[in-house]
Amino acid sequence: MSVKLISSNKCFEGEQRIYSHFSNVLGCEMKFGLFMPPAVLEDNITCPVLYYLSGLTCTHENFIHKSGMQQYASKYGLIVVNPDTSPRNLNIPGEDDSYDFGTGAGFYINAKKEPWAKNYQMFSYVTDELVQLINQNFPVVPTKKGIFGHSMGGHGALICALKNPGLYQSISAFAPIANPVECPWGQKAFKGYLGDDQELWKEWDATYLATKYSGNPLELFIDQGCDDNFLKEKQLLPENLLQAAACNDHLQTIYKERVGYDHSYYYIASYVGEHIAYHAKLLN
Amino acid sequence: MSVKLISSNKCFEGEQRIYSHFSNVLGCEMKFGLFMPPAVLEDNITCPVLYYLSGLTCTHENFIHKSGMQQYASKYGLIVVNPDTSPRNLNIPGEDDSYDFGTGAGFYINAKKEPWAKNYQMFSYVTDELVQLINQNFPVVPTKKGIFGHSMGGHGALICALKNPGLYQSISAFAPIANPVECPWGQKAFKGYLGDDQELWKEWDATYLATKYSGNPLELFIDQGCDDNFLKEKQLLPENLLQAAACNDHLQTIYKERVGYDHSYYYIASYVGEHIAYHAKLLN
Repeated sequence: MSVKLISSNKCFEGEQRIYSHFSNVLGCEMKFGLFMPPAVLEDNITCPVLYYLSGLTCTHENFIHKSGMQQYASKYGLIVVNPDTSPRNLNIPGEDDSYDFGTGAGFYINAKKEPWAKNYQMFSYVTDELVQLINQNFPVVPTKKGIFGHSMGGHGALICALKNPGLYQSISAFAPIANPVECPWGQKAFKGYLGDDQELWKEWDATYLATKYSGNPLELFIDQGCDDNFLKEKQLLPENLLQAAACNDHLQTIYKERVGYDHSYYYIASYVGEHIAYHAKLLN
Repeated sequence: MSVKLISSNKCFEGEQRIYSHFSNVLGCEMKFGLFMPPAVLEDNITCPVLYYLSGLTCTHENFIHKSGMQQYASKYGLIVVNPDTSPRNLNIPGEDDSYDFGTGAGFYINAKKEPWAKNYQMFSYVTDELVQLINQNFPVVPTKKGIFGHSMGGHGALICALKNPGLYQSISAFAPIANPVECPWGQKAFKGYLGDDQELWKEWDATYLATKYSGNPLELFIDQGCDDNFLKEKQLLPENLLQAAACNDHLQTIYKERVGYDHSYYYIASYVGEHIAYHAKLLN
Protein backbone atom coordinates (compact mmCIF):
# COMPACT_ATOMS: atom_id res chain seq x y z
CA MET A 1 0.00 0.00 0.00
CA SER A 2 1.48 3.30 -1.04
CA VAL A 3 0.59 6.90 -0.37
CA LYS A 4 0.96 10.03 -2.50
CA LEU A 5 1.96 13.33 -0.92
CA ILE A 6 -0.45 16.09 -2.00
CA SER A 7 0.89 18.96 0.08
CA SER A 8 3.13 19.74 3.03
CA ASN A 9 3.21 23.00 5.00
CA LYS A 10 5.49 23.75 7.89
CA CYS A 11 3.42 24.47 10.98
CA PHE A 12 4.55 24.82 14.61
CA GLU A 13 7.95 23.43 13.61
CA GLY A 14 6.32 20.24 12.29
CA GLU A 15 4.69 19.57 8.94
CA GLN A 16 0.98 19.44 8.15
CA ARG A 17 0.73 17.10 5.22
CA ILE A 18 -2.11 15.84 3.06
CA TYR A 19 -1.84 12.45 1.41
CA SER A 20 -4.02 10.47 -0.98
CA HIS A 21 -4.17 6.74 -1.61
CA PHE A 22 -6.43 4.20 -3.26
CA SER A 23 -8.51 2.38 -0.67
CA ASN A 24 -9.25 -1.21 -1.56
CA VAL A 25 -11.82 -1.39 1.22
CA LEU A 26 -13.75 1.64 0.00
CA GLY A 27 -13.03 1.23 -3.69
CA CYS A 28 -12.03 4.84 -4.25
CA GLU A 29 -9.25 7.36 -3.85
CA MET A 30 -9.14 8.80 -0.32
CA LYS A 31 -7.34 11.75 1.23
CA PHE A 32 -6.16 12.12 4.79
CA GLY A 33 -4.29 14.69 6.83
CA LEU A 34 -1.12 13.78 8.69
CA PHE A 35 0.73 16.07 11.08
CA MET A 36 4.34 15.16 11.54
CA PRO A 37 5.72 16.59 14.78
CA PRO A 38 9.21 18.12 14.91
CA ALA A 39 10.44 15.34 17.21
CA VAL A 40 10.09 12.88 14.34
CA LEU A 41 11.48 15.21 11.69
CA GLU A 42 14.51 16.28 13.68
CA ASP A 43 15.43 13.19 15.64
CA ASN A 44 14.32 10.50 13.23
CA ILE A 45 12.46 8.62 15.96
CA THR A 46 9.13 6.79 16.02
CA CYS A 47 6.17 8.13 17.97
CA PRO A 48 2.56 7.36 18.89
CA VAL A 49 -0.21 8.13 16.43
CA LEU A 50 -3.50 9.80 17.26
CA TYR A 51 -6.43 9.34 14.86
CA TYR A 52 -9.14 11.98 14.59
CA LEU A 53 -12.55 11.33 13.02
CA SER A 54 -14.54 14.33 11.78
CA GLY A 55 -18.24 15.03 11.88
CA LEU A 56 -21.02 15.30 9.31
CA THR A 57 -20.24 17.28 6.12
CA CYS A 58 -16.52 17.49 6.88
CA THR A 59 -13.68 16.47 4.61
CA HIS A 60 -10.13 15.84 5.78
CA GLU A 61 -9.64 19.64 5.73
CA ASN A 62 -11.89 21.06 8.47
CA PHE A 63 -9.92 19.68 11.39
CA ILE A 64 -6.60 20.66 9.85
CA HIS A 65 -7.69 24.23 9.19
CA LYS A 66 -9.87 25.03 12.16
CA SER A 67 -8.85 23.10 15.26
CA GLY A 68 -5.37 24.48 15.87
CA MET A 69 -4.31 20.97 16.92
CA GLN A 70 -0.87 21.25 15.33
CA GLN A 71 0.38 23.37 18.23
CA TYR A 72 -0.30 20.57 20.70
CA ALA A 73 0.70 17.65 18.49
CA SER A 74 4.01 19.46 18.05
CA LYS A 75 4.39 20.04 21.78
CA TYR A 76 3.57 16.45 22.79
CA GLY A 77 5.26 14.67 19.89
CA LEU A 78 2.30 12.88 18.35
CA ILE A 79 1.62 12.04 14.72
CA VAL A 80 -2.02 13.01 14.07
CA VAL A 81 -3.92 11.34 11.24
CA ASN A 82 -7.37 12.47 10.15
CA PRO A 83 -9.22 10.60 7.41
CA ASP A 84 -12.19 11.76 5.35
CA THR A 85 -15.76 11.11 6.51
CA SER A 86 -16.95 8.84 3.68
CA PRO A 87 -15.98 7.40 0.34
CA ARG A 88 -16.06 10.01 -2.46
CA ASN A 89 -17.12 10.29 -6.08
CA LEU A 90 -18.72 6.87 -6.44
CA ASN A 91 -21.79 8.09 -8.34
CA ILE A 92 -24.12 6.06 -6.16
CA PRO A 93 -27.66 7.38 -6.78
CA GLY A 94 -28.57 9.71 -3.93
CA GLU A 95 -25.07 9.95 -2.45
CA ASP A 96 -25.15 13.75 -2.53
CA ASP A 97 -28.81 14.30 -1.71
CA SER A 98 -28.47 15.19 1.95
CA TYR A 99 -25.83 16.42 4.38
CA ASP A 100 -26.46 13.61 6.88
CA PHE A 101 -26.37 10.56 4.61
CA GLY A 102 -24.01 9.42 1.85
CA THR A 103 -21.08 11.64 0.96
CA GLY A 104 -19.59 13.26 4.07
CA ALA A 105 -21.71 11.06 6.34
CA GLY A 106 -20.25 7.56 6.38
CA PHE A 107 -20.82 7.22 10.15
CA TYR A 108 -17.72 4.99 10.47
CA ILE A 109 -19.83 1.82 10.19
CA ASN A 110 -19.82 -1.02 7.66
CA ALA A 111 -22.94 -0.80 5.49
CA LYS A 112 -24.96 -3.96 4.85
CA LYS A 113 -27.60 -2.61 2.53
CA GLU A 114 -27.18 -1.98 -1.19
CA PRO A 115 -26.17 0.19 -2.95
CA TRP A 116 -23.99 1.25 -0.01
CA ALA A 117 -22.55 -2.07 1.18
CA LYS A 118 -19.93 -2.30 -1.55
CA ASN A 119 -18.14 0.92 -0.63
CA TYR A 120 -19.41 2.36 2.64
CA GLN A 121 -17.10 0.30 4.86
CA MET A 122 -15.68 3.16 6.87
CA PHE A 123 -15.27 1.06 10.02
CA SER A 124 -12.98 -1.42 8.31
CA TYR A 125 -11.22 1.42 6.56
CA VAL A 126 -10.47 3.35 9.75
CA THR A 127 -9.66 0.44 12.08
CA ASP A 128 -7.85 -1.81 9.63
CA GLU A 129 -6.78 -0.56 6.21
CA LEU A 130 -5.80 2.94 7.31
CA VAL A 131 -3.99 1.65 10.39
CA GLN A 132 -1.97 -0.77 8.25
CA LEU A 133 -1.24 1.97 5.76
CA ILE A 134 0.01 4.31 8.48
CA ASN A 135 2.03 1.58 10.19
CA GLN A 136 3.73 0.68 6.91
CA ASN A 137 4.48 4.16 5.65
CA PHE A 138 5.21 6.33 8.67
CA PRO A 139 7.48 6.20 11.74
CA VAL A 140 4.80 5.25 14.25
CA VAL A 141 4.90 2.93 17.23
CA PRO A 142 2.20 0.43 16.18
CA THR A 143 1.26 -0.39 19.76
CA LYS A 144 0.62 3.23 20.72
CA LYS A 145 -2.55 4.44 19.06
CA GLY A 146 -5.16 6.89 20.29
CA ILE A 147 -8.45 7.88 18.66
CA PHE A 148 -10.76 10.83 19.07
CA GLY A 149 -13.36 12.65 17.07
CA HIS A 150 -16.25 15.09 16.94
CA SER A 151 -20.00 14.48 16.72
CA MET A 152 -20.46 11.66 14.14
CA GLY A 153 -16.70 11.20 14.44
CA GLY A 154 -16.86 11.23 18.23
CA HIS A 155 -19.23 8.30 17.97
CA GLY A 156 -16.96 6.77 15.38
CA ALA A 157 -14.04 6.92 17.79
CA LEU A 158 -16.11 5.28 20.51
CA ILE A 159 -17.29 2.35 18.38
CA CYS A 160 -13.85 1.83 16.87
CA ALA A 161 -12.52 1.38 20.42
CA LEU A 162 -15.46 -0.53 21.90
CA LYS A 163 -15.52 -3.03 19.04
CA ASN A 164 -11.73 -3.51 19.10
CA PRO A 165 -10.57 -4.00 22.71
CA GLY A 166 -6.86 -3.30 22.91
CA LEU A 167 -6.53 -1.61 19.54
CA TYR A 168 -6.42 1.92 20.97
CA GLN A 169 -4.74 2.98 24.19
CA SER A 170 -6.58 6.29 24.52
CA ILE A 171 -10.09 7.40 23.48
CA SER A 172 -11.88 10.72 23.63
CA ALA A 173 -14.86 12.36 21.96
CA PHE A 174 -16.13 15.91 21.48
CA ALA A 175 -19.92 16.05 21.53
CA PRO A 176 -20.40 12.51 20.20
CA ILE A 177 -23.68 11.23 18.77
CA ALA A 178 -23.61 8.89 21.73
CA ASN A 179 -26.67 6.76 21.09
CA PRO A 180 -27.49 6.90 17.37
CA VAL A 181 -30.19 4.23 17.56
CA GLU A 182 -32.24 6.70 19.61
CA CYS A 183 -31.73 9.92 17.63
CA PRO A 184 -32.89 11.17 14.20
CA TRP A 185 -29.40 11.39 12.66
CA GLY A 186 -28.54 7.86 13.70
CA GLN A 187 -31.89 6.36 12.76
CA LYS A 188 -31.71 7.83 9.25
CA ALA A 189 -28.14 6.66 8.71
CA PHE A 190 -28.54 3.18 10.21
CA LYS A 191 -31.77 2.51 8.32
CA GLY A 192 -30.08 3.61 5.11
CA TYR A 193 -26.82 1.74 5.57
CA LEU A 194 -28.01 -1.29 7.57
CA GLY A 195 -31.67 -1.80 6.67
CA ASP A 196 -34.64 -2.32 8.98
CA ASP A 197 -33.17 -4.82 11.47
CA GLN A 198 -32.78 -2.77 14.62
CA GLU A 199 -30.88 -5.56 16.36
CA LEU A 200 -28.19 -5.04 13.76
CA TRP A 201 -28.22 -1.30 14.46
CA LYS A 202 -27.23 -1.97 18.07
CA GLU A 203 -23.96 -3.54 16.96
CA TRP A 204 -22.94 -0.08 15.75
CA ASP A 205 -24.24 2.00 18.63
CA ALA A 206 -21.78 3.16 21.30
CA THR A 207 -24.34 3.06 24.09
CA TYR A 208 -25.36 -0.54 23.35
CA LEU A 209 -21.74 -1.50 22.87
CA ALA A 210 -20.91 0.10 26.23
CA THR A 211 -23.61 -2.04 27.85
CA LYS A 212 -22.10 -5.30 26.70
CA TYR A 213 -18.40 -4.39 26.53
CA SER A 214 -16.27 -7.02 28.25
CA GLY A 215 -12.75 -6.34 27.00
CA ASN A 216 -9.79 -4.91 28.86
CA PRO A 217 -10.61 -1.94 31.11
CA LEU A 218 -11.21 1.15 29.01
CA GLU A 219 -11.47 4.83 29.88
CA LEU A 220 -13.67 7.05 27.70
CA PHE A 221 -13.12 10.83 27.87
CA ILE A 222 -16.38 12.49 26.78
CA ASP A 223 -16.52 16.26 26.24
CA GLN A 224 -19.70 18.25 25.74
CA GLY A 225 -20.54 21.92 25.21
CA CYS A 226 -23.55 23.00 27.26
CA ASP A 227 -24.89 25.40 24.62
CA ASP A 228 -24.75 22.81 21.85
CA ASN A 229 -27.99 23.02 19.84
CA PHE A 230 -27.74 19.37 18.87
CA LEU A 231 -27.57 18.42 22.53
CA LYS A 232 -30.81 20.33 23.09
CA GLU A 233 -32.38 18.67 20.03
CA LYS A 234 -31.51 15.24 21.52
CA GLN A 235 -29.23 14.20 18.68
CA LEU A 236 -26.31 13.53 21.04
CA LEU A 237 -27.72 11.89 24.21
CA PRO A 238 -24.44 11.60 26.14
CA GLU A 239 -26.44 10.75 29.30
CA ASN A 240 -27.39 7.40 27.78
CA LEU A 241 -23.78 6.46 27.14
CA LEU A 242 -22.67 7.63 30.58
CA GLN A 243 -25.45 5.56 32.17
CA ALA A 244 -24.47 2.46 30.21
CA ALA A 245 -20.79 2.85 31.07
CA ALA A 246 -21.60 3.46 34.74
CA CYS A 247 -23.18 -0.01 34.88
CA ASN A 248 -20.19 -1.72 33.27
CA ASP A 249 -17.15 -2.51 35.44
CA HIS A 250 -14.95 -2.72 32.37
CA LEU A 251 -15.56 0.93 31.52
CA GLN A 252 -14.71 4.21 33.16
CA THR A 253 -15.73 7.62 31.89
CA ILE A 254 -14.39 11.12 32.30
CA TYR A 255 -17.17 13.57 31.46
CA LYS A 256 -16.52 17.29 31.02
CA GLU A 257 -19.23 19.86 30.35
CA ARG A 258 -18.15 23.22 28.94
CA VAL A 259 -20.44 26.07 29.92
CA GLY A 260 -21.41 28.32 27.00
CA TYR A 261 -19.77 26.28 24.25
CA ASP A 262 -21.61 25.09 21.14
CA HIS A 263 -21.03 22.34 18.55
CA SER A 264 -18.56 24.27 16.37
CA TYR A 265 -14.84 24.17 15.76
CA TYR A 266 -14.57 27.22 18.04
CA TYR A 267 -15.43 24.78 20.82
CA ILE A 268 -13.05 22.10 19.58
CA ALA A 269 -10.21 24.62 19.21
CA SER A 270 -10.75 25.69 22.82
CA TYR A 271 -10.31 22.16 24.20
CA VAL A 272 -8.27 20.22 21.66
CA GLY A 273 -5.16 21.06 23.68
CA GLU A 274 -6.62 19.38 26.76
CA HIS A 275 -7.58 16.31 24.72
CA ILE A 276 -4.20 15.95 23.08
CA ALA A 277 -2.50 16.31 26.47
CA TYR A 278 -4.78 13.52 27.74
CA HIS A 279 -3.90 11.22 24.84
CA ALA A 280 -0.19 12.01 25.16
CA LYS A 281 -0.25 11.08 28.83
CA LEU A 282 -1.77 7.67 28.06
CA LEU A 283 0.32 7.02 24.96
CA ASN A 284 3.73 8.03 26.26
CA MET B 1 -23.32 54.23 13.35
CA SER B 2 -24.79 50.93 14.43
CA VAL B 3 -23.71 47.34 14.05
CA LYS B 4 -25.71 44.15 13.64
CA LEU B 5 -24.58 40.94 15.33
CA ILE B 6 -24.51 38.07 12.82
CA SER B 7 -23.08 35.32 15.03
CA SER B 8 -21.29 34.74 18.31
CA ASN B 9 -19.44 31.58 19.34
CA LYS B 10 -17.72 31.01 22.64
CA CYS B 11 -14.04 30.38 22.06
CA PHE B 12 -11.20 30.21 24.60
CA GLU B 13 -13.55 31.66 27.22
CA GLY B 14 -14.18 34.73 25.06
CA GLU B 15 -16.56 35.21 22.15
CA GLN B 16 -15.76 35.20 18.46
CA ARG B 17 -18.39 37.43 16.91
CA ILE B 18 -19.22 38.50 13.39
CA TYR B 19 -20.93 41.83 12.80
CA SER B 20 -22.25 43.63 9.77
CA HIS B 21 -22.89 47.32 9.21
CA PHE B 22 -23.52 49.72 6.36
CA SER B 23 -20.34 51.58 5.47
CA ASN B 24 -20.95 55.12 4.26
CA VAL B 25 -17.37 55.36 3.05
CA LEU B 26 -17.60 52.22 0.91
CA GLY B 27 -21.28 52.48 0.03
CA CYS B 28 -22.09 48.88 0.88
CA GLU B 29 -22.80 46.45 3.69
CA MET B 30 -19.60 45.18 5.30
CA LYS B 31 -18.85 42.36 7.70
CA PHE B 32 -16.07 42.18 10.25
CA GLY B 33 -14.90 39.74 12.91
CA LEU B 34 -14.56 40.82 16.52
CA PHE B 35 -13.09 38.69 19.27
CA MET B 36 -14.19 39.73 22.72
CA PRO B 37 -11.75 38.47 25.37
CA PRO B 38 -13.03 37.05 28.66
CA ALA B 39 -11.52 39.96 30.61
CA VAL B 40 -14.06 42.29 28.99
CA LEU B 41 -16.99 39.88 29.26
CA GLU B 42 -16.39 38.99 32.89
CA ASP B 43 -15.07 42.18 34.40
CA ASN B 44 -16.89 44.75 32.28
CA ILE B 45 -13.67 46.67 31.62
CA THR B 46 -12.30 48.41 28.56
CA CYS B 47 -9.29 47.06 26.72
CA PRO B 48 -6.97 47.78 23.79
CA VAL B 49 -8.05 46.83 20.28
CA LEU B 50 -5.88 45.11 17.70
CA TYR B 51 -6.86 45.39 14.02
CA TYR B 52 -5.92 42.66 11.57
CA LEU B 53 -5.96 43.15 7.78
CA SER B 54 -6.19 40.04 5.61
CA GLY B 55 -4.55 39.23 2.31
CA LEU B 56 -5.74 38.78 -1.29
CA THR B 57 -8.90 36.67 -1.79
CA CYS B 58 -9.75 36.61 1.92
CA THR B 59 -13.01 37.61 3.51
CA HIS B 60 -13.43 38.38 7.20
CA GLU B 61 -13.57 34.60 7.79
CA ASN B 62 -10.12 33.25 6.94
CA PHE B 63 -8.28 34.80 9.87
CA ILE B 64 -11.05 33.85 12.30
CA HIS B 65 -11.08 30.21 11.19
CA LYS B 66 -7.46 29.49 10.47
CA SER B 67 -5.11 31.59 12.59
CA GLY B 68 -5.97 30.33 16.07
CA MET B 69 -5.55 33.91 17.32
CA GLN B 70 -8.41 33.67 19.82
CA GLN B 71 -6.22 31.70 22.24
CA TYR B 72 -3.77 34.58 22.51
CA ALA B 73 -6.28 37.44 22.37
CA SER B 74 -7.99 35.69 25.27
CA LYS B 75 -4.75 35.30 27.19
CA TYR B 76 -3.58 38.89 26.70
CA GLY B 77 -6.97 40.59 26.97
CA LEU B 78 -7.21 42.24 23.56
CA ILE B 79 -10.25 42.90 21.40
CA VAL B 80 -9.30 41.80 17.88
CA VAL B 81 -11.15 43.30 14.90
CA ASN B 82 -10.67 42.02 11.36
CA PRO B 83 -12.47 43.72 8.48
CA ASP B 84 -13.08 42.39 4.98
CA THR B 85 -10.57 42.99 2.18
CA SER B 86 -12.72 45.09 -0.18
CA PRO B 87 -16.21 46.41 -0.73
CA ARG B 88 -18.64 43.69 -1.83
CA ASN B 89 -21.51 43.21 -4.28
CA LEU B 90 -21.26 46.56 -6.03
CA ASN B 91 -21.70 45.19 -9.55
CA ILE B 92 -18.79 47.26 -10.86
CA PRO B 93 -17.86 45.81 -14.28
CA GLY B 94 -14.83 43.56 -13.84
CA GLU B 95 -14.91 43.49 -10.04
CA ASP B 96 -14.84 39.68 -9.97
CA ASP B 97 -12.57 39.08 -12.96
CA SER B 98 -9.35 38.36 -11.08
CA TYR B 99 -8.19 37.31 -7.64
CA ASP B 100 -5.75 40.20 -7.30
CA PHE B 101 -7.94 43.17 -8.29
CA GLY B 102 -11.45 44.24 -7.32
CA THR B 103 -13.41 42.07 -4.92
CA GLY B 104 -11.15 40.63 -2.23
CA ALA B 105 -8.28 42.87 -3.32
CA GLY B 106 -8.93 46.40 -2.09
CA PHE B 107 -5.28 46.89 -1.09
CA TYR B 108 -6.32 49.22 1.76
CA ILE B 109 -5.81 52.30 -0.41
CA ASN B 110 -8.19 55.03 -1.57
CA ALA B 111 -8.88 54.62 -5.29
CA LYS B 112 -8.72 57.70 -7.51
CA LYS B 113 -9.70 56.18 -10.82
CA GLU B 114 -13.25 55.42 -11.95
CA PRO B 115 -15.20 53.19 -11.67
CA TRP B 116 -13.38 52.31 -8.41
CA ALA B 117 -13.00 55.71 -6.76
CA LYS B 118 -16.56 55.91 -5.50
CA ASN B 119 -16.39 52.78 -3.35
CA TYR B 120 -12.84 51.44 -3.11
CA GLN B 121 -11.83 53.66 -0.19
CA MET B 122 -10.50 50.94 2.07
CA PHE B 123 -7.85 53.17 3.63
CA SER B 124 -10.45 55.65 4.90
CA TYR B 125 -12.67 52.77 5.92
CA VAL B 126 -10.02 51.02 8.00
CA THR B 127 -8.32 54.03 9.55
CA ASP B 128 -11.35 56.25 10.11
CA GLU B 129 -14.88 54.89 9.73
CA LEU B 130 -14.19 51.45 11.23
CA VAL B 131 -12.17 52.93 14.08
CA GLN B 132 -15.02 55.31 14.93
CA LEU B 133 -17.51 52.48 14.70
CA ILE B 134 -15.49 50.31 17.05
CA ASN B 135 -14.84 53.15 19.48
CA GLN B 136 -18.56 53.96 19.64
CA ASN B 137 -19.92 50.45 19.94
CA PHE B 138 -17.40 48.43 21.95
CA PRO B 139 -15.55 48.77 25.27
CA VAL B 140 -12.18 49.75 23.82
CA VAL B 141 -9.57 52.19 25.05
CA PRO B 142 -9.48 54.58 22.05
CA THR B 143 -5.86 55.53 22.63
CA LYS B 144 -4.62 51.93 22.61
CA LYS B 145 -4.78 50.55 19.09
CA GLY B 146 -2.53 48.10 17.32
CA ILE B 147 -2.61 46.96 13.70
CA PHE B 148 -1.20 43.96 11.89
CA GLY B 149 -1.91 41.98 8.78
CA HIS B 150 -0.76 39.46 6.20
CA SER B 151 0.57 39.95 2.67
CA MET B 152 -1.67 42.64 1.07
CA GLY B 153 -2.96 43.21 4.60
CA GLY B 154 0.56 43.34 6.03
CA HIS B 155 1.22 46.19 3.62
CA GLY B 156 -2.13 47.67 4.56
CA ALA B 157 -1.14 47.70 8.22
CA LEU B 158 2.16 49.41 7.36
CA ILE B 159 0.61 52.20 5.29
CA CYS B 160 -2.19 52.76 7.79
CA ALA B 161 0.47 53.37 10.43
CA LEU B 162 2.99 55.27 8.29
CA LYS B 163 0.33 57.65 6.95
CA ASN B 164 -1.18 58.25 10.39
CA PRO B 165 1.60 58.91 12.91
CA GLY B 166 0.28 58.33 16.40
CA LEU B 167 -2.89 56.53 15.40
CA TYR B 168 -1.52 53.05 16.23
CA GLN B 169 0.75 52.19 19.13
CA SER B 170 1.91 48.83 17.74
CA ILE B 171 2.43 47.59 14.17
CA SER B 172 3.41 44.23 12.74
CA ALA B 173 3.16 42.43 9.42
CA PHE B 174 3.33 38.84 8.22
CA ALA B 175 4.96 38.59 4.79
CA PRO B 176 3.85 42.04 3.65
CA ILE B 177 3.86 43.18 0.03
CA ALA B 178 6.45 45.64 1.21
CA ASN B 179 7.09 47.67 -1.94
CA PRO B 180 4.05 47.33 -4.21
CA VAL B 181 5.24 49.92 -6.71
CA GLU B 182 8.04 47.50 -7.62
CA CYS B 183 6.11 44.21 -7.84
CA PRO B 184 3.52 42.78 -10.25
CA TRP B 185 0.66 42.60 -7.70
CA GLY B 186 1.15 46.20 -6.64
CA GLN B 187 1.65 47.54 -10.14
CA LYS B 188 -1.58 45.94 -11.35
CA ALA B 189 -3.58 47.18 -8.37
CA PHE B 190 -2.14 50.70 -8.28
CA LYS B 191 -2.55 51.20 -12.02
CA GLY B 192 -6.14 50.02 -11.75
CA TYR B 193 -7.13 51.99 -8.68
CA LEU B 194 -4.91 55.07 -9.07
CA GLY B 195 -4.22 55.45 -12.79
CA ASP B 196 -0.92 56.00 -14.56
CA ASP B 197 0.68 58.64 -12.31
CA GLN B 198 3.44 56.72 -10.56
CA GLU B 199 4.17 59.65 -8.23
CA LEU B 200 0.69 59.08 -6.83
CA TRP B 201 1.44 55.39 -6.39
CA LYS B 202 4.31 56.23 -4.06
CA GLU B 203 1.91 57.84 -1.60
CA TRP B 204 0.47 54.36 -1.03
CA ASP B 205 3.71 52.38 -0.95
CA ALA B 206 5.14 51.38 2.45
CA THR B 207 8.75 51.54 1.27
CA TYR B 208 8.39 55.08 -0.12
CA LEU B 209 6.43 56.12 2.95
CA ALA B 210 9.19 54.70 5.15
CA THR B 211 11.73 56.81 3.27
CA LYS B 212 9.97 60.07 4.03
CA TYR B 213 8.29 59.26 7.36
CA SER B 214 8.92 62.03 9.90
CA GLY B 215 6.36 61.41 12.62
CA ASN B 216 6.85 60.12 16.13
CA PRO B 217 9.33 57.22 16.46
CA LEU B 218 7.75 54.03 15.16
CA GLU B 219 8.75 50.40 15.44
CA LEU B 220 7.73 48.02 12.64
CA PHE B 221 7.78 44.27 13.35
CA ILE B 222 8.18 42.47 10.02
CA ASP B 223 7.85 38.67 9.84
CA GLN B 224 8.75 36.57 6.82
CA GLY B 225 8.72 32.87 6.00
CA CYS B 226 11.87 31.80 4.16
CA ASP B 227 10.08 29.25 1.95
CA ASP B 228 7.44 31.72 0.82
CA ASN B 229 6.97 31.33 -2.94
CA PHE B 230 5.86 34.94 -3.28
CA LEU B 231 9.10 36.05 -1.65
CA LYS B 232 11.01 34.08 -4.29
CA GLU B 233 8.81 35.58 -7.04
CA LYS B 234 9.71 39.08 -5.79
CA GLN B 235 6.15 40.05 -4.93
CA LEU B 236 7.08 40.90 -1.33
CA LEU B 237 10.49 42.63 -1.39
CA PRO B 238 10.90 43.10 2.38
CA GLU B 239 14.56 44.03 1.83
CA ASN B 240 13.49 47.30 0.19
CA LEU B 241 11.39 48.31 3.18
CA LEU B 242 14.10 47.32 5.65
CA GLN B 243 16.62 49.37 3.71
CA ALA B 244 14.35 52.42 3.65
CA ALA B 245 13.62 52.14 7.36
CA ALA B 246 17.31 51.69 8.17
CA CYS B 247 17.99 55.11 6.65
CA ASN B 248 15.24 56.84 8.62
CA ASP B 249 15.94 57.81 12.24
CA HIS B 250 12.22 57.94 12.98
CA LEU B 251 11.81 54.25 12.23
CA GLN B 252 13.06 51.07 13.81
CA THR B 253 12.42 47.57 12.51
CA ILE B 254 12.35 44.12 14.05
CA TYR B 255 12.78 41.57 11.28
CA LYS B 256 12.23 37.86 11.84
CA GLU B 257 12.81 35.19 9.21
CA ARG B 258 11.18 31.80 9.76
CA VAL B 259 13.08 28.93 8.21
CA GLY B 260 10.90 26.54 6.23
CA TYR B 261 7.65 28.50 6.50
CA ASP B 262 5.57 29.50 3.49
CA HIS B 263 2.88 32.14 2.84
CA SER B 264 -0.06 30.18 4.26
CA TYR B 265 -2.16 30.37 7.40
CA TYR B 266 -0.12 27.43 8.73
CA TYR B 267 2.71 29.96 8.97
CA ILE B 268 0.52 32.65 10.50
CA ALA B 269 -0.92 30.21 13.04
CA SER B 270 2.61 29.28 14.09
CA TYR B 271 3.60 32.88 14.91
CA VAL B 272 0.38 34.76 15.63
CA GLY B 273 0.95 34.09 19.32
CA GLU B 274 4.32 35.85 19.19
CA HIS B 275 2.77 38.80 17.34
CA ILE B 276 -0.13 39.19 19.73
CA ALA B 277 2.27 39.02 22.69
CA TYR B 278 4.28 41.80 21.01
CA HIS B 279 1.21 43.99 20.52
CA ALA B 280 0.00 43.32 24.06
CA LYS B 281 3.34 44.42 25.48
CA LEU B 282 3.17 47.75 23.64
CA LEU B 283 -0.54 48.32 24.24
CA ASN B 284 -0.72 47.46 27.93
